Amino acid sequence: MDPQEPTIPDGARNLSGDTLTAAVLASFSHCASDRLTEIMSSLVRHLHAFVGEVQLTEEEWASGIDFLTRVGHITTDQRQEFILLSDVLGVSMQVIGINHQRPAGATESTVFGPFFTANSPRYANGDDMANGAPGEPCYLHGSVRSLDGAPIPDARIEVWQADDLGHYDVQYDDLESARGRGHLFSDRDGRYYFWSLLPTAYPIPDDGPVGDLLAAAQRSPMRPAHVHFMITAPGYHALVTHVFAEGDHYLDTDAVFGVKSSLIVPFERHEAGIAPDGRQMDRPFSTMRYDFVLAPVAAE
Amino acid sequence: MDPQEPTIPDGARNLSGDTLTAAVLASFSHCASDRLTEIMSSLVRHLHAFVGEVQLTEEEWASGIDFLTRVGHITTDQRQEFILLSDVLGVSMQVIGINHQRPAGATESTVFGPFFTANSPRYANGDDMANGAPGEPCYLHGSVRSLDGAPIPDARIEVWQADDLGHYDVQYDDLESARGRGHLFSDRDGRYYFWSLLPTAYPIPDDGPVGDLLAAAQRSPMRPAHVHFMITAPGYHALVTHVFAEGDHYLDTDAVFGVKSSLIVPFERHEAGIAPDGRQMDRPFSTMRYDFVLAPVAAE
Repeated sequence: MDPQEPTIPDGARNLSGDTLTAAVLASFSHCASDRLTEIMSSLVRHLHAFVGEVQLTEEEWASGIDFLTRVGHITTDQRQEFILLSDVLGVSMQVIGINHQRPAGATESTVFGPFFTANSPRYANGDDMANGAPGEPCYLHGSVRSLDGAPIPDARIEVWQADDLGHYDVQYDDLESARGRGHLFSDRDGRYYFWSLLPTAYPIPDDGPVGDLLAAAQRSPMRPAHVHFMITAPGYHALVTHVFAEGDHYLDTDAVFGVKSSLIVPFERHEAGIAPDGRQMDRPFSTMRYDFVLAPVAAE
Repeated sequence: MDPQEPTIPDGARNLSGDTLTAAVLASFSHCASDRLTEIMSSLVRHLHAFVGEVQLTEEEWASGIDFLTRVGHITTDQRQEFILLSDVLGVSMQVIGINHQRPAGATESTVFGPFFTANSPRYANGDDMANGAPGEPCYLHGSVRSLDGAPIPDARIEVWQADDLGHYDVQYDDLESARGRGHLFSDRDGRYYFWSLLPTAYPIPDDGPVGDLLAAAQRSPMRPAHVHFMITAPGYHALVTHVFAEGDHYLDTDAVFGVKSSLIVPFERHEAGIAPDGRQMDRPFSTMRYDFVLAPVAAE
């Protein structure tokens, strides 16, 4: 052990209240990067202000330690409870608001959520991404365009959504392949079209510590029905967003504060018959159309 | 799933900045306890203010999620990295300052730290708690008294300390019994006396995410040499404290901001010979005396 030169000011004894906060700030004043100093200084000031403002008791502090420990222990490659916590505290949406101030006309962003996975299966336009997931078939289509209306061909479109039980494929232990999840590319005219499921409202995973917090706050864990999209194309800002279903009961009470009016569209229901792509459907189905507009990197 | 009545105000769409913060605050305005509403309101306001103040990027947010995940995953029954994080951010000392404002004359408190364990072995006065741990023998003695100087008999005295390699027993994988750890009771005159080790300065565990944070902040992980004490007796406030060794190089740069002048005493070194309890020592040893003063519950 060869400790680095201490940076806490000499005589840092008998610290409490303001002198304690000053000593902690001083200890972060020589970070390897100025940005880390900036971030840690703000974090320390707000953490100490929070503890002082509520006069946190030792039992409450211990509850906080225990809560964070449980959040950490339930988090796996398949379940990210810290992101869920950030979501229900509105922190995720705040970060998105800061980092995605796009020009008017560009599609708005919303939360990424905890259920994206890399390496989703590739589909072609016209394919069915539901891949056997339970739910009513839905035909999703539209275009990917630039601010000036020009089509963007070969945009990579990642899609993920819950089934009609409100579960994403990664929430099942026994699935051998992705369901309600995949990626495809816009065609030469910037169009996309595929089959998946009619989305339904569902609760965020509420069997863990974040669920306990929502219960203690008497908050609903429900999210309005939506389909996740992440769209990337060279020369454009990546777009992470949802399309929400018009008329959903939970649009005004989203547990993660992610609803934007511009992202709400009708999911139109149709009886069995001929679908827009000519497919003969032997049961009812829905259709949804959304035209995504990407912001060019150069436009900012 | 039978969600409770949503409490987010109607029309909570298109939230960002102040409207987002207001909506999150509203969502915590009907907690099962008023105290939880108070705590969550302050926490949300400070979290949002922090994110806005530093204009947190998505990469930085993701680094924060990853950091907390690593803190969670390294935390076990034997290692509490969230407490360590609270310690190096000065939050633990702040909570202690708020909750241990004792009358003048009472022994001061300091951090609990991550290494206490319940069910330590019981010793009698005069025993050796080192139990084979490597280090120089030390005779620790003194008394437990009330504010008026009256001895407190039968006070339970929990002791834990690192060995001369800077490790607590729980940091070893292969120990069958406690070392440098135990509890005993003050005698009828309020006195205690036992053998253990001369404490040495040591780094807090810095092979995990908290160590990474200290390294990025160019902060030393060292703590000055100390012995932990927790003393409890009916009718008195529990005392959680350390005794620090006078002259230690790190007294002004404690990684967890825990040093108080009133807790520093000399650990006197003696050559081989007769110890204060009459024991014949065949190698050098130290002696330390500290008189603990407990605050009566009724005194506040």
